[in-house]
Amino acid sequence: MSETGSSFSEAEPFTLAIDGMGGDGGPEVVVAGLAIAADRHPSARILLIGDEDRLREQLARHPKAAAICTVRPAAAAVPMDMKPTAALRLRDSSMRLAMDAVAQGEARGVVSAGNSGAMLALAKIVIKTLPGISRPAMAAISPTTKGDVVMLDLGANMACDWRNLVEFAVMGEAFAKAVLGLTAPTIGLLNVGSEELKGDEKLRQAAEILRNSPLAPQFHGFVEGHDITAGTTDVVVTDGFTGNVALKTGEGALKMSFVLLRQVFRSGLLAKLGYLLVRPGLNRMREWLDPRRYNGAVFVGLNGVVVKSHGGTDAEGFASAVDVAMDMVTHRFNESIRERLSRMGALTALRPGAGKDQPAVAVVS
Amino acid sequence: MSETGSSFSEAEPFTLAIDGMGGDGGPEVVVAGLAIAADRHPSARILLIGDEDRLREQLARHPKAAAICTVRPAAAAVPMDMKPTAALRLRDSSMRLAMDAVAQGEARGVVSAGNSGAMLALAKIVIKTLPGISRPAMAAISPTTKGDVVMLDLGANMACDWRNLVEFAVMGEAFAKAVLGLTAPTIGLLNVGSEELKGDEKLRQAAEILRNSPLAPQFHGFVEGHDITAGTTDVVVTDGFTGNVALKTGEGALKMSFVLLRQVFRSGLLAKLGYLLVRPGLNRMREWLDPRRYNGAVFVGLNGVVVKSHGGTDAEGFASAVDVAMDMVTHRFNESIRERLSRMGALTALRPGAGKDQPAVAVVS
Repeated sequence: MSETGSSFSEAEPFTLAIDGMGGDGGPEVVVAGLAIAADRHPSARILLIGDEDRLREQLARHPKAAAICTVRPAAAAVPMDMKPTAALRLRDSSMRLAMDAVAQGEARGVVSAGNSGAMLALAKIVIKTLPGISRPAMAAISPTTKGDVVMLDLGANMACDWRNLVEFAVMGEAFAKAVLGLTAPTIGLLNVGSEELKGDEKLRQAAEILRNSPLAPQFHGFVEGHDITAGTTDVVVTDGFTGNVALKTGEGALKMSFVLLRQVFRSGLLAKLGYLLVRPGLNRMREWLDPRRYNGAVFVGLNGVVVKSHGGTDAEGFASAVDVAMDMVTHRFNESIRERLSRMGALTALRPGAGKDQPAVAVVS
Repeated sequence: MSETGSSFSEAEPFTLAIDGMGGDGGPEVVVAGLAIAADRHPSARILLIGDEDRLREQLARHPKAAAICTVRPAAAAVPMDMKPTAALRLRDSSMRLAMDAVAQGEARGVVSAGNSGAMLALAKIVIKTLPGISRPAMAAISPTTKGDVVMLDLGANMACDWRNLVEFAVMGEAFAKAVLGLTAPTIGLLNVGSEELKGDEKLRQAAEILRNSPLAPQFHGFVEGHDITAGTTDVVVTDGFTGNVALKTGEGALKMSFVLLRQVFRSGLLAKLGYLLVRPGLNRMREWLDPRRYNGAVFVGLNGVVVKSHGGTDAEGFASAVDVAMDMVTHRFNESIRERLSRMGALTALRPGAGKDQPAVAVVS
């Protein structure tokens, strides 16, 4: 892989800015999570932002976390139910100061378990969108029967056009490289059927662009809902409304199967004995599907790494979100998007039909 | 419940038209399915349409099916991959003749395991849309941890406006009454969050209309993807694109959990012994989630009952699809929609904002 265009070498130390006040658990969960992260990344440098007294109280309990953290006081915190427009006006919130640290080059990424609408709005205004990307998207990894899948958008953009979908494909591919460590991730566009004529105009246009782009060898075409967990492709691209519904529907179905399994294992004395015998395997299955392992949705397409931890997560889950941020910086996620975009040419110059011998814009004469 | 407006009493015998040629299994699966249906509905009257020789050959093997069937020859069959426009031109197909039988009042409903795009197109043209309904939708039932849920639209309409969504709510409620036997089914609108401000304009408008309609006591508001399998509401309403993706994503996630469970039970000698002990409970769970039990998606909003069996189903699944059609006719599904629509007033007269003291159409002066 070419290093051209990268302004950072992988070995260079970097700082992550952490919003110490986000999430239902606040500083208690965040700092406990950083203690786990410190074990995994002992050379990490963390700028921990929030209520100084509360943060120092937690750091005193977690000396491992204290060893990697520098505390920066913030006078305010963004409440979980605050509207994005109100959060934008709160200039001294821990979330805002964390974003500022990235914008000013002090930190390479930010992790927060706070209000996601506020995070997206602040990230767009403070950190700003990558050149060549029209809108950031929310991406995350999910389990499949074969391995993991990257899904995006998961809710940042309710309505999308073909250009957004193509950009999501570019960013999803870079994400799968950085976080899953794949060399040539395959890409699928989520649709209601796999035939070329299925779906609406924007899907067919995005597919046409991808088929005629440098990503063509990795573009699988349309995939359907069941392909997500089947692991048909490494990346599944869709609009934010559909992605959000699909993610939550899949999680709900898995939860139902665990609820039903619990009933099976409690259905009698023999079943209880059977449970004891299969428990080790079941625990491995539960670990594989553990939402905490998949914690850390990422707002991609910004001039920095922005990771959103689930608000209700525990320390283990928060540490996973920190892992994702570390992976994305060390594996040059944004540099990879830039390289790909420069190889694809300006997306603004692309338009469906342009690759064929027909005018890109139909002229009615 | 008032019988006003019903032109049929529940006890009156009726005929179902069956497309004998649809599905991957053709007449073999269809007639074997009818033999199972004959056991459950010995007084059923079936008009079985298709290639006469092939149908009679199968009926000779299944005397129970023969006892309830009248055969009507059809010279052609709609292939599974035929485009709807081509299927509309094929006037002597078994699918077309089955629709004709409903349009001419010979049969009250049709069941086919054939090409669903062709079915929808033929049903719209031949059987026609119910007065007061602008577009038919595809509905089906799915398992939840609490019971069953009715979902619609599952793919008949890729893009929907608020009026379509309100109509889907009306039809979904009638479906839950007819097929699940509920007296006052609750209704949820699928969205990316449960707060009133979430989602796009058409979702907020549909919610406003439902909150101010006679369905208000049953309208739960917005639901999210995980609410589908949690059984939060008895009916989940969404557009055809999202519904199709959600249905297949949920099925995929359940399939993944079974694949992983199989690995657990094969992971060693003790696990295999454990499997033997929990097998009876697991078989009950598998039965509960068996897709064949949920076979039979219904095109609702037409002047007759139109049930689509999965193309790859077996005889048991086809019999389930016949069950659904029987339930919908005997429980007066379409009469229930007509009653509800007349109580709601003409939907065309409804518009978001009309219930409040503000003009329904903003005038820029």
